[in-house]
Amino acid sequence: MIKPLHLHPDRLFPSDADTRAVARRLHAEIRDLPIISPHGHTDPSWFAGDAPFANPAELLITPDHYVFRMLFSQGVPMEDLGVPCVDGGTIETDPRKIWRRFAERYHLFHGTPSRIWHDWVYAEVFGIEVRLSTETADHYYDVIDAALKTELFRPRALFERHNIEVLTTTESPIDTLEHHQAIRASGWRGRVLTAFRPDPVLDPDYEGFHANLAVLADLTRRDTLSWSGYLDALRDRRAVFAALGATSTDHGHPTAFTADLPAVEAEALFKRVSTGPATASDAELFRGQMLTEMAAMSVDDGLVMQLHPGSFRNHNAAVFRHFGRDKGADIPTRTDYVRALKPLLDRFGSDPRLSLILFTLDETTYSRELAPLAGHYPALKLGPSWWFHDSPEGMRRFREQVTETAGFYNTVGFNDDTRAFLSIPARHDVARRMDCGFMARLVVEHRLEEDEAHDLARALTYDLVKAAYKL
Amino acid sequence: MIKPLHLHPDRLFPSDADTRAVARRLHAEIRDLPIISPHGHTDPSWFAGDAPFANPAELLITPDHYVFRMLFSQGVPMEDLGVPCVDGGTIETDPRKIWRRFAERYHLFHGTPSRIWHDWVYAEVFGIEVRLSTETADHYYDVIDAALKTELFRPRALFERHNIEVLTTTESPIDTLEHHQAIRASGWRGRVLTAFRPDPVLDPDYEGFHANLAVLADLTRRDTLSWSGYLDALRDRRAVFAALGATSTDHGHPTAFTADLPAVEAEALFKRVSTGPATASDAELFRGQMLTEMAAMSVDDGLVMQLHPGSFRNHNAAVFRHFGRDKGADIPTRTDYVRALKPLLDRFGSDPRLSLILFTLDETTYSRELAPLAGHYPALKLGPSWWFHDSPEGMRRFREQVTETAGFYNTVGFNDDTRAFLSIPARHDVARRMDCGFMARLVVEHRLEEDEAHDLARALTYDLVKAAYKL
Amino acid sequence: MIKPLHLHPDRLFPSDADTRAVARRLHAEIRDLPIISPHGHTDPSWFAGDAPFANPAELLITPDHYVFRMLFSQGVPMEDLGVPCVDGGTIETDPRKIWRRFAERYHLFHGTPSRIWHDWVYAEVFGIEVRLSTETADHYYDVIDAALKTELFRPRALFERHNIEVLTTTESPIDTLEHHQAIRASGWRGRVLTAFRPDPVLDPDYEGFHANLAVLADLTRRDTLSWSGYLDALRDRRAVFAALGATSTDHGHPTAFTADLPAVEAEALFKRVSTGPATASDAELFRGQMLTEMAAMSVDDGLVMQLHPGSFRNHNAAVFRHFGRDKGADIPTRTDYVRALKPLLDRFGSDPRLSLILFTLDETTYSRELAPLAGHYPALKLGPSWWFHDSPEGMRRFREQVTETAGFYNTVGFNDDTRAFLSIPARHDVARRMDCGFMARLVVEHRLEEDEAHDLARALTYDLVKAAYKL
Repeated sequence: MIKPLHLHPDRLFPSDADTRAVARRLHAEIRDLPIISPHGHTDPSWFAGDAPFANPAELLITPDHYVFRMLFSQGVPMEDLGVPCVDGGTIETDPRKIWRRFAERYHLFHGTPSRIWHDWVYAEVFGIEVRLSTETADHYYDVIDAALKTELFRPRALFERHNIEVLTTTESPIDTLEHHQAIRASGWRGRVLTAFRPDPVLDPDYEGFHANLAVLADLTRRDTLSWSGYLDALRDRRAVFAALGATSTDHGHPTAFTADLPAVEAEALFKRVSTGPATASDAELFRGQMLTEMAAMSVDDGLVMQLHPGSFRNHNAAVFRHFGRDKGADIPTRTDYVRALKPLLDRFGSDPRLSLILFTLDETTYSRELAPLAGHYPALKLGPSWWFHDSPEGMRRFREQVTETAGFYNTVGFNDDTRAFLSIPARHDVARRMDCGFMARLVVEHRLEEDEAHDLARALTYDLVKAAYKL
Repeated sequence: MIKPLHLHPDRLFPSDADTRAVARRLHAEIRDLPIISPHGHTDPSWFAGDAPFANPAELLITPDHYVFRMLFSQGVPMEDLGVPCVDGGTIETDPRKIWRRFAERYHLFHGTPSRIWHDWVYAEVFGIEVRLSTETADHYYDVIDAALKTELFRPRALFERHNIEVLTTTESPIDTLEHHQAIRASGWRGRVLTAFRPDPVLDPDYEGFHANLAVLADLTRRDTLSWSGYLDALRDRRAVFAALGATSTDHGHPTAFTADLPAVEAEALFKRVSTGPATASDAELFRGQMLTEMAAMSVDDGLVMQLHPGSFRNHNAAVFRHFGRDKGADIPTRTDYVRALKPLLDRFGSDPRLSLILFTLDETTYSRELAPLAGHYPALKLGPSWWFHDSPEGMRRFREQVTETAGFYNTVGFNDDTRAFLSIPARHDVARRMDCGFMARLVVEHRLEEDEAHDLARALTYDLVKAAYKL
Repeated sequence: MIKPLHLHPDRLFPSDADTRAVARRLHAEIRDLPIISPHGHTDPSWFAGDAPFANPAELLITPDHYVFRMLFSQGVPMEDLGVPCVDGGTIETDPRKIWRRFAERYHLFHGTPSRIWHDWVYAEVFGIEVRLSTETADHYYDVIDAALKTELFRPRALFERHNIEVLTTTESPIDTLEHHQAIRASGWRGRVLTAFRPDPVLDPDYEGFHANLAVLADLTRRDTLSWSGYLDALRDRRAVFAALGATSTDHGHPTAFTADLPAVEAEALFKRVSTGPATASDAELFRGQMLTEMAAMSVDDGLVMQLHPGSFRNHNAAVFRHFGRDKGADIPTRTDYVRALKPLLDRFGSDPRLSLILFTLDETTYSRELAPLAGHYPALKLGPSWWFHDSPEGMRRFREQVTETAGFYNTVGFNDDTRAFLSIPARHDVARRMDCGFMARLVVEHRLEEDEAHDLARALTYDLVKAAYKL
């Protein structure tokens, strides 16, 4: 049976009538504010070339690890979903078949944010009015595929249609930034910025670390096998990124560990990790030292630091072998911040020139570590609920567990952090609704006045983001 | 003052009127579905012999560690409750006195699931219409005692009356399964199955481990002091269990640690733990290796694996000395899954022949570890909230923290996991109501359509359980 | 724009109409019960001397680390708030300027308990009817300053006006207790008690530990460099505290670790830590041993023990250097209880003469460790949600995560634990409302009868506190 698809105007608001009424009023004033997307992983080549997206599967399934991880968990081989193999295996190449496999199993996403984001995209972006199912799979495919062939669904047109004021992508120091340069050169007025993500040249465990140092040397004409040359090369690349408009760096370390070694020890450590395979403890120590070095550079050049720690990357050995990284096999781990960050904070925690935005995959740290740290150190702010927790319940837990100790003003509004372009407006829609719902509860419980909630709703949606990321 | 006892038809549903209305509609369609109890610790001799339960205390207090742990915490010696001493101490033998001690302190259970289960049993099973208290203690005793003397309250009659379709008990490999054989031989049509719980012969720290290996040798005529003979003996017993209808194994390790040693190292390890007292690290390594061996056997024989880790057993040394194990002194501990399970998952995590159902006593792992793992690995599913968390708030936290990442379909419905027979229907009643209440909230917040919630309610109550446990 | 300040009579109650109606009825019966404040850090000299509070800043800002930590986190130097420097730095001395700096940033406290407490104080204590803001800062200052100059706002008058039945402060064994003696000698009938907080002479890492032992020797005429003399000196001081009315001890260790060494090892350990700088492991072992020694003394003298573990004190090295301890730079850490407490519990956990009240800053332990421990061991009870978690959401999480396993009767009612005198009635107001709201939800979900909730409301507010603290 074909069923209607309808985005209810009250979706995600608490059902209590008084609370919902407040949430509606708060939301009405911020729903149309522009989208500030200060951190994410979309592909800048989309906006540089403005080529059409190839087909529904390539737009909505193949790049979305939320989608294929769930299908894989329920027994669908990733090959059948067209996920590219790094080892040359055969994969499904018919996008319509991939789409049908997804559509037949859409019930697996009941209760997940993927369902919410996808339905938003189907209804709002493509104007579809029936629910996705086995019966409607081909209808969906045809509607989306036809739309993608039109000018209105080119990347830049979608960017503008969704009222995106700024969109930030993430590049490695050894990226040539050619797409960002092309965007600038094109005369298009969409504001797409890069962010400096140096893991490939900071983390001795990163694939190709030594080769990456060589590329970094080529790009900068620095001796990246000397400690001072390496640091200078990083400074050079940060300056290049900043000159192209970057305002932030991003660090995806396995832990939040930091170190602040005497210069001579740091140099010796760099010698060891740059010349041979690093031991596990040297690799961790070096990553920790480099976070502090990055903080020192941020104090100088003003780039806002983001720390996204705590993911056990590529947990499934077989999936990593066949498909490579970022294939839905990253698993959160318990993460310490209190001891881990102390060396960096002892040096820069009270320095008004540093701004370090912390994220977590370990929700136990919200009330125990992150809110107390951000509610004390001038250099610290808290990023929104992240990745697995970028969801209605995750956002609710974040606000409930963070606000009483850190307040709202030590948080930085919403990040979508996505590779799936069309999920950006969908995710911001969720975040705005959840924040309004949270504040509405405070209002009806007389813990916040409604006029204050109106000011806060705007701050969380727009002002705090721009201020925190210097946008 | 004597007060009425009344089970409200809306009990456990959210109070918001719209949400409650949806919950009622969902519940109406699943409330009368048969009970599938795929994991628990009832005594199969009850159903083999069908003898009457002896008296109210022996039915409802002495076997229920939830009850006597709370009374003990408030100063009541366990001897006074008739809990048997293993060291020959004197205990209360008058069941009416035991019952009165409980009744006088029934207020201690306010806000606990024990209160909810007991009231359900009093009202639904025994038709009592007044609340339990000092004043009504004797009335309760008389009503229950009289009922137990009738045919209608024999174990098999209660099994049928409560519409139990399948009930699984748990036995050791060195159990003769005589009661299960007697049930089969009796011609009674109630479906009571065993599950294979090998801790007594897998865990070098288990009481009597070496003697248990000798019994295993006798039962199987295998040389259980050789590594291959030991593994063959386990295979033999699994086959015997399976032949009697078992579809699952169960593992109650202190941690979720797994190992996958080369065969020669595994054999040497077995030699060490089987011939002398094991060091703590050898014991842990052996348990971890044996989980992987059990997974290998499950791949072959199709038995579903259950892992119940993270209990610090027998924490109170004095209680263990006087009363033995399972006396309310087991305390949950912090539990890691991400690193612990990797060796097993590297070998079998993507193997469609393995099904491993994970439980936890550490709720912090729901959103951080378990949902991400189960939302990726085809071999993994999540068991329901367990033991201390088999409660209204525990169930709510489970769904709120698991669903967004793992969905509903990587969970397996409800387990009661109880030793207290009459709490089985009471616990299923709670689970069905809480699941309906959770989904009702999703419906009124427009995160799930009501027709989808109806399908899910049936899946969570019945279909997913049967599928996950191959029942 | 100047906005009204109004304490809504339904504040902090759930918004659902039925639930709120129950909460109101529960609250109406307990709102006027006297305040029992069994643990806190107010200054006994206030009640001994009954001198007026100096000015609004000194009353409400300078001593309140919740306030200045938030302002510091948003870039306000603590010097500008008049927080005294231990290293002789210059600080703001004009209380009106300090007050204005706070008022201008009052929005930073939106959503925090500080906002709730402060508004309560402004409205209830000082009768102010407009909200605090830049515009109203001087009005506030003038009203409060004028009030403080009157008899009605002296410490004793405020104590009586707020219906405080007992107030407990916390003193070190080397405190002379002169203020408590003065209160007794004054004939004033307010009941202000001390509690025995021996960290300065139990913790080898405490500032001045060796000097403190010397003061202890002077006070007791014991040889505090011998193990037996040291223990006797502690016994003596406990007796002095008890003679002045103390009923409890309090222990603020970094962890909950306990030890129970053979006497000869304990003596050797004491020799090491008392004669030289302690290694980190000796310091931890000694603290752990001393918790067990304190339990042994409590078994003898009946003082109730409180354990407040898990704070990483003075995390910000620069703040500690300039401003000293207790300056908003203490950060919670992950805390283990299950293994940590076992040595003490093996010795005294089932002893009816010991009462040990546990607190935590690590909310993950509520359902995993603390409720299971308190729901089993006769010697254990749970203190309320503490410090960062002394807040509406913190209280809700405490009850939701603790009650199902430990019940209500293994908890001890509310503690304010504050240095800010006027926040005492404000905090009790929050706690009473949150407990009523929590129980109201149980009532409307038919998990508790309303008559039972009425009994419990009184118990949580008054009876359990007095019983647990022997007041």
